[in-house]
Amino acid sequence: MEKGDGNEGASAFHMPEWMIQFADQKQEFNKRPTKIGRRSLSRSISQSSTDSYSSAASYTDSSDDETSPRDKQQKNSKGNSDFCVKNIKQAEFGRREIEIAEQEMPALMALRKRAQGEKPLAGAKIVGCTHITAQTAVLMETLGALGAQCRWAACNIYSTLNEVAAALAESGFPVFAWKGESEDDFWWCIDRCVNVEGWQPNMILDDGGDLTHWIYKKYPNMFKKIKGIVEESVTGVHRLYQLSKAGKLCVPAMNVNDSVTKQKFDNLYCCRESILDGLKRTTDMMFGGKQVVVCGYGEVGKGCCAALKAMGSIVYVTEIDPICALQACMDGFRLVKLNEVIRQVDIVITCTGNKNVVTREHLDRMKNSCIVCNMGHSNTEIDVASLRTPELTWERVRSQVDHVIWPDGKRIVLLAEGRLLNLSCSTVPTFVLSITATTQALALIELYNAPEGRYKQDVYLLPKKMDEYVASLHLPTFDAHLTELTDEQAKYLGLNKNGPFKPNYYRY
Amino acid sequence: MEKGDGNEGASAFHMPEWMIQFADQKQEFNKRPTKIGRRSLSRSISQSSTDSYSSAASYTDSSDDETSPRDKQQKNSKGNSDFCVKNIKQAEFGRREIEIAEQEMPALMALRKRAQGEKPLAGAKIVGCTHITAQTAVLMETLGALGAQCRWAACNIYSTLNEVAAALAESGFPVFAWKGESEDDFWWCIDRCVNVEGWQPNMILDDGGDLTHWIYKKYPNMFKKIKGIVEESVTGVHRLYQLSKAGKLCVPAMNVNDSVTKQKFDNLYCCRESILDGLKRTTDMMFGGKQVVVCGYGEVGKGCCAALKAMGSIVYVTEIDPICALQACMDGFRLVKLNEVIRQVDIVITCTGNKNVVTREHLDRMKNSCIVCNMGHSNTEIDVASLRTPELTWERVRSQVDHVIWPDGKRIVLLAEGRLLNLSCSTVPTFVLSITATTQALALIELYNAPEGRYKQDVYLLPKKMDEYVASLHLPTFDAHLTELTDEQAKYLGLNKNGPFKPNYYRY
Amino acid sequence: MEKGDGNEGASAFHMPEWMIQFADQKQEFNKRPTKIGRRSLSRSISQSSTDSYSSAASYTDSSDDETSPRDKQQKNSKGNSDFCVKNIKQAEFGRREIEIAEQEMPALMALRKRAQGEKPLAGAKIVGCTHITAQTAVLMETLGALGAQCRWAACNIYSTLNEVAAALAESGFPVFAWKGESEDDFWWCIDRCVNVEGWQPNMILDDGGDLTHWIYKKYPNMFKKIKGIVEESVTGVHRLYQLSKAGKLCVPAMNVNDSVTKQKFDNLYCCRESILDGLKRTTDMMFGGKQVVVCGYGEVGKGCCAALKAMGSIVYVTEIDPICALQACMDGFRLVKLNEVIRQVDIVITCTGNKNVVTREHLDRMKNSCIVCNMGHSNTEIDVASLRTPELTWERVRSQVDHVIWPDGKRIVLLAEGRLLNLSCSTVPTFVLSITATTQALALIELYNAPEGRYKQDVYLLPKKMDEYVASLHLPTFDAHLTELTDEQAKYLGLNKNGPFKPNYYRY
Amino acid sequence: MEKGDGNEGASAFHMPEWMIQFADQKQEFNKRPTKIGRRSLSRSISQSSTDSYSSAASYTDSSDDETSPRDKQQKNSKGNSDFCVKNIKQAEFGRREIEIAEQEMPALMALRKRAQGEKPLAGAKIVGCTHITAQTAVLMETLGALGAQCRWAACNIYSTLNEVAAALAESGFPVFAWKGESEDDFWWCIDRCVNVEGWQPNMILDDGGDLTHWIYKKYPNMFKKIKGIVEESVTGVHRLYQLSKAGKLCVPAMNVNDSVTKQKFDNLYCCRESILDGLKRTTDMMFGGKQVVVCGYGEVGKGCCAALKAMGSIVYVTEIDPICALQACMDGFRLVKLNEVIRQVDIVITCTGNKNVVTREHLDRMKNSCIVCNMGHSNTEIDVASLRTPELTWERVRSQVDHVIWPDGKRIVLLAEGRLLNLSCSTVPTFVLSITATTQALALIELYNAPEGRYKQDVYLLPKKMDEYVASLHLPTFDAHLTELTDEQAKYLGLNKNGPFKPNYYRY
Repeated sequence: MEKGDGNEGASAFHMPEWMIQFADQKQEFNKRPTKIGRRSLSRSISQSSTDSYSSAASYTDSSDDETSPRDKQQKNSKGNSDFCVKNIKQAEFGRREIEIAEQEMPALMALRKRAQGEKPLAGAKIVGCTHITAQTAVLMETLGALGAQCRWAACNIYSTLNEVAAALAESGFPVFAWKGESEDDFWWCIDRCVNVEGWQPNMILDDGGDLTHWIYKKYPNMFKKIKGIVEESVTGVHRLYQLSKAGKLCVPAMNVNDSVTKQKFDNLYCCRESILDGLKRTTDMMFGGKQVVVCGYGEVGKGCCAALKAMGSIVYVTEIDPICALQACMDGFRLVKLNEVIRQVDIVITCTGNKNVVTREHLDRMKNSCIVCNMGHSNTEIDVASLRTPELTWERVRSQVDHVIWPDGKRIVLLAEGRLLNLSCSTVPTFVLSITATTQALALIELYNAPEGRYKQDVYLLPKKMDEYVASLHLPTFDAHLTELTDEQAKYLGLNKNGPFKPNYYRY
Repeated sequence: MEKGDGNEGASAFHMPEWMIQFADQKQEFNKRPTKIGRRSLSRSISQSSTDSYSSAASYTDSSDDETSPRDKQQKNSKGNSDFCVKNIKQAEFGRREIEIAEQEMPALMALRKRAQGEKPLAGAKIVGCTHITAQTAVLMETLGALGAQCRWAACNIYSTLNEVAAALAESGFPVFAWKGESEDDFWWCIDRCVNVEGWQPNMILDDGGDLTHWIYKKYPNMFKKIKGIVEESVTGVHRLYQLSKAGKLCVPAMNVNDSVTKQKFDNLYCCRESILDGLKRTTDMMFGGKQVVVCGYGEVGKGCCAALKAMGSIVYVTEIDPICALQACMDGFRLVKLNEVIRQVDIVITCTGNKNVVTREHLDRMKNSCIVCNMGHSNTEIDVASLRTPELTWERVRSQVDHVIWPDGKRIVLLAEGRLLNLSCSTVPTFVLSITATTQALALIELYNAPEGRYKQDVYLLPKKMDEYVASLHLPTFDAHLTELTDEQAKYLGLNKNGPFKPNYYRY
Repeated sequence: MEKGDGNEGASAFHMPEWMIQFADQKQEFNKRPTKIGRRSLSRSISQSSTDSYSSAASYTDSSDDETSPRDKQQKNSKGNSDFCVKNIKQAEFGRREIEIAEQEMPALMALRKRAQGEKPLAGAKIVGCTHITAQTAVLMETLGALGAQCRWAACNIYSTLNEVAAALAESGFPVFAWKGESEDDFWWCIDRCVNVEGWQPNMILDDGGDLTHWIYKKYPNMFKKIKGIVEESVTGVHRLYQLSKAGKLCVPAMNVNDSVTKQKFDNLYCCRESILDGLKRTTDMMFGGKQVVVCGYGEVGKGCCAALKAMGSIVYVTEIDPICALQACMDGFRLVKLNEVIRQVDIVITCTGNKNVVTREHLDRMKNSCIVCNMGHSNTEIDVASLRTPELTWERVRSQVDHVIWPDGKRIVLLAEGRLLNLSCSTVPTFVLSITATTQALALIELYNAPEGRYKQDVYLLPKKMDEYVASLHLPTFDAHLTELTDEQAKYLGLNKNGPFKPNYYRY
Repeated sequence: MEKGDGNEGASAFHMPEWMIQFADQKQEFNKRPTKIGRRSLSRSISQSSTDSYSSAASYTDSSDDETSPRDKQQKNSKGNSDFCVKNIKQAEFGRREIEIAEQEMPALMALRKRAQGEKPLAGAKIVGCTHITAQTAVLMETLGALGAQCRWAACNIYSTLNEVAAALAESGFPVFAWKGESEDDFWWCIDRCVNVEGWQPNMILDDGGDLTHWIYKKYPNMFKKIKGIVEESVTGVHRLYQLSKAGKLCVPAMNVNDSVTKQKFDNLYCCRESILDGLKRTTDMMFGGKQVVVCGYGEVGKGCCAALKAMGSIVYVTEIDPICALQACMDGFRLVKLNEVIRQVDIVITCTGNKNVVTREHLDRMKNSCIVCNMGHSNTEIDVASLRTPELTWERVRSQVDHVIWPDGKRIVLLAEGRLLNLSCSTVPTFVLSITATTQALALIELYNAPEGRYKQDVYLLPKKMDEYVASLHLPTFDAHLTELTDEQAKYLGLNKNGPFKPNYYRY
């Protein structure tokens, strides 16, 4: 039961089936990067699906080097060999990418500057497991500038930018990651970060929960010295709530996935742009006059609907939640059941986080040339498996674009095989990644410096004040000028002049 | 400190000064209806400021009747005299208004229907203190249909629709209210609701906290039988949190002001329309090309900005909260300090809930013909008092419109003397009032029927499931069709098919 | 057949039946002001339907003076008696209104200033017949400042602001007009303007064509000295084309109704705002989520659709013209036949200029509480006559709002009895009137000063350069800064640096 | 001087300098495709800049074949050798592309169907010179189905899709075109179309005027049998007006570039989408909160502004034309001079058709990372030449993206070297090309079938009725249902039930 202006604890949230299925999914690990949540896209990943636009074209090509990095002996220019990357000689190219990223991540650069005197992470020993990209490198070097020691592995076997990893190794970071790891490599890299003589981590930065999982399994005693876990993915956060519910979480953990700033940018604002981008890059279609049904009116759905409406599409919405449904109505969208419009729409977009939202039956009823794509959480929303039957012909017409052809000649245009359209067919702006990285840095600082007792063995949201701080660090990008409360106003409102400015239940 | 996905209790919210000042403000009680929150507008109030459009014109006029209702002996057609209204003979006119309102409040009518068999409020004795309007009458008669006995007083000395009060009295409701009560009348009416021989309330429905305050002060023992308080105003809710913090709250209370549906409709959606309406009715201005600064980017500010942008105005935003500020940026508004644009804007709109947002200094610098108005919480946002100095001339050019004239001839157009524009110069659609009334009804049902122990002596938000239920009752208005989860989907998401569908921290 | 980049002459435009019917309509002259086109609304007219907001409330009331102005002997303070108004003593009140209007008509004031040295209308003797309002007064006094002598009558028997007429008479303008003229008065006033000893007009400014008609009929020889006619109404313009086609037009005429600036402001931009205003003031309805059908997607329809879509309505469009229909599609509106949606919509708006667009059959099929209104050219679009049958009950619920009730209880909400909603239920901003008045002034200057032979006995559009000039005079209102072509750029584009900047067929 | 409701002829339009310069530009012919107007983009061109998404990837690759097509002996399967293409064996691949295009060009397919009985082009001998793409092929085969004989050359040396040319040759069309022609090849191909024994063209379809120019120069006598020219490009149309002005145009010509449907789709609707697409594909930037200045508020500028505003950018506009400037104001954009905002904006977009709109001085003052691009008519708008100075470093970071680096490290991001962004970095939807092609087909039919005397030796716009017909043929794509006038309504409006529905000066 809800109490006051507060909310129930983590334990009240039901355990969804897909989390229970998680172990099974791990078996598919090496097949494709399905576990990458939308929220942790690195520039490199999206580049992987958009090669021709990637500056990676200028990178040194080492694809012909077949030797496993684990079998190589490499040293950086200072003679240090505590790392394992594809090719240390690519460091210079990676450094240039990092420098470009620095220009677009002013918040982290500001953090470096503000922390020049004090070192809020002095003594921190952070072990990290994230995508390894130029943006991550800016984060790592910021953590270093704030006083921390870092060791790092990749959270995805495909997403590492080898040149960036090389640049980090060159400047002394123990990095263990390369593009195209095997599953064995994956765990070996993580282990090399954690299992070091004479060095024991006291902070964890995780993306997906694999690092946390490994320490739980192999080095549970390490948690005695660990002050906290910062986790940014949907998947990892759910695993933490699961641990907490089971009473097995033995350190405080910070769920940075659900911070206000991150949510709004990852979902509403980012998807408002990437739905258009993803559709254009794959199909070159015209939006004006098109009939579209968007399944789900959460933040992602809201972003998709707003963008398509603005471009002249006629948008229908389906929802299961009456509150979101009422919002859709007031925002000017007809709320329908999918069946009501399935015969007439030109585009079907799923944003529900649910499974089998678009079924074979729906697909059978769509009109010729209907485009079907997914902007939701995982690849379960469209029942793509149901299309892999003998009577249907698949025709790959472009990268990420399949025509599925019915016996009568009807074609459905399926994008990214039902996987995330914006992950597969568009890019994530550095600005969004900057917000994520800043949030992570602040969460690490908070957990590391929190006085004894402030955090218990539970999962916490980022304190609102820090969420506000992340936002404030990004305002200069827009040449935006914040107003300060006068003393009299602060007193009138009962607020501290430096925030937090809102009660926790505020919805923005 | 925030914990898990939840939020801290009421106690963590700082006590704003304006609440402390509340007692002082009460002295101004009879001067003007300043205590009316935006959220509790009745149609009649807004009509009072828009007489010419009011259907009230067709009402029977009893303004020449100078006798105080307290001095009259009136009986309804069944001989009942347990009420005190202006003129029982106006009942027929009031009944017609109620019938019209019934057509526009399908949710309450649906509640009546669904509860035909069971009477979820059987045995409930509800004492209420709200604006007395046709919409309130539909609520009261719904509560009656659900099994409750009701006694009612007005929460505002001006807002009672005499004809509606008469209609309620005629159909047997003990109503004690008329338009133009004195302060003494005000408390007398409340007392007549509460202090009845052989009848003791077990539920309170309050709007502003005066009824609750009276019982606390005069009949504290009554709380032994009272199962709960439902409060809908900002002011009343804060008083309850104050009591709770002080450990003096002796029954469970439901804060219905902060339910999702109510907030979005009262603030975002309603203000999106009423800002345009209020400005047009008062000034007949053209929006296209006008430069506007909106102070505050909460729900109200968001609504104002969206509407004006859509009408072709160029909108600037001021904010103190960096998160809201970043939202303004992403939504396409220049974030400025008021001083940066004050010389160039054509319109200044305050939506902060703060005080002295627009100061005399700002007013001095505005350009000729600048329009200044307030959409925020109270009449403190614009420092109107600072304009009442000898060198400035005030000229009333229309109802609710003053020209304040500087010695050099510059004119500022001040609307509603800085009070709420949408309260004073536009109307609140019945649809919004329907959502509020339905929320109140469901909160009463919940508190009355909750098993022992579900609610303690604290302030609660409406359970999300009921919030969702309110929304679902209003979907038919839009011919909106909700999708139902399949069993498989519900299991996958770990949700009950009937909701609630979101974690409590979900922001919509 | 179209030729080159140009267009065919007036003769190619088919003569619509409603013009032929014009003579018949004149019989209804005194019944209601049906001949007022949207394009010639004065503030006073709209005020007449919105009395409570009108500053007219402060006017002196002379309604009890039953003497006809024609029977009175009045002199202004200088002893002049060459005028006929209601009451010369109201001059002071009218002067104040004129002064306020001057502030909002910067373009005309700028014209006065620029023409201080030269008097481009020196020697001009202008006879005018327009609505007589504060804005007209600013126009007349501007013409005077430019050197012209003027005599003026009202083009509508209801629309004269008596105080303004008095103020004009007081400052020496021979004005013949009052509110509530009989038809005989109407023609008498016109005659008094034209038929003067020792004074013969050489320019005509007409609104509706009645003045022109009178001179044609009574004083055809006058045309020998007349240099041209400026006409601003749809009706008057069509009469001129009719004359031209019949070879009877004996002086050049300027059609200012179809100038770009005037069209866009009168139709697109003005209606974008007045549709919302008109609906709110009459019904207090909420726009969000409402289903609306807009009949006609010309400029007026485009404005209505854009506004309602922006407020969250779901908008359907009907069209007969495939080009406008395709525009509606690309702008995001479902193009339907009225029958397809008539059962489901909450609002029906006509903007076609056509007749019987909404028939009794449609009205029979509408759902309960459907709102029906007209934004189009005349009152023919909705077949209101078909509703005046015995089985239907009419209930006037507010000014301009009727409920038409079917035997089964269904109610249709009919606004303004099918007349123009924005004429009847909202106001026209002074800014729009300023554009119209400036266009008229420039057209008079152009025709008066044109060298022999530039204009023949035909109907002309305002030269594009003057249309551009009108626009440029209004830019300062928005603090808008125009860019000037460099010599090199002008040469490159083959344009004069001062315009005109576009070929005549340019569509804006 | 303007007359009536019409427009002046072509002769009144000043000869722009850039047309006079045309001869000089021809010298650059082989360097880059600068003469390609926005209006004649083929899918293949845009594909050339977006290779990875191009279905061309599946095409047969004949790039290793260095033999000039002119030196090859090729026959199609029927033994016909009257063509010259790269490789006749690619026909099958081209046919598949044509079939896909057919699905997206329903209007042409409908024309084929409707003309099955009659052959409106029976006897027509059309010589064409356009981009040779799948869409053109659908047009050519439609002309064939309507009875015409066609011979075709390419209007651009780069844009020919070899596979499509092969497919056309295979099905019997004499096509002379390949990708990568030399200038000599270019004229040789044109000559092969025209100079044929026993076949003389009687219709010309031109795109750019080169074919027309060639016939004028080499075979002037041919014009005796030619019934007309259809020209679709800005450049070609201006050349025709030049000829007309000089009295040298010896057949009727149809300017299809300025038809309503084509203009709105090519400019407003297409650019509304392609500005977003072009910016995203090149820079992956986020639009929200960005400050943008758009130079020029014609149709292209209107489209760009609307799209960016909708995505949350803050948009400033510059204009030289006060009418367009006033529109920008009313649409909610600050109208500025470029200098006022050049230091603060994140993006500069030119849409003027003018030259040196963005000068080196502007570029010097832009802030770091400012993006500069051109959506206007040609590559003259940004003074790119001024950036090719020794102190500035150019760095190609992606295809179509250059960083120009100032000595102090400031970088400007220049897109497409100042050429058209939407030509270079996005695609043109088939739907837009369908409108163009249908317009061309109807213009050919009209000119070919016009009775003697309807058209003289002048340049004509497409008759409005045909423009309306093009629109009506595209409505089924949107499942849009047009309303038909009743007889009574048509009579009332004085219109034919089948159109045209508007006077020629109507602006849409």
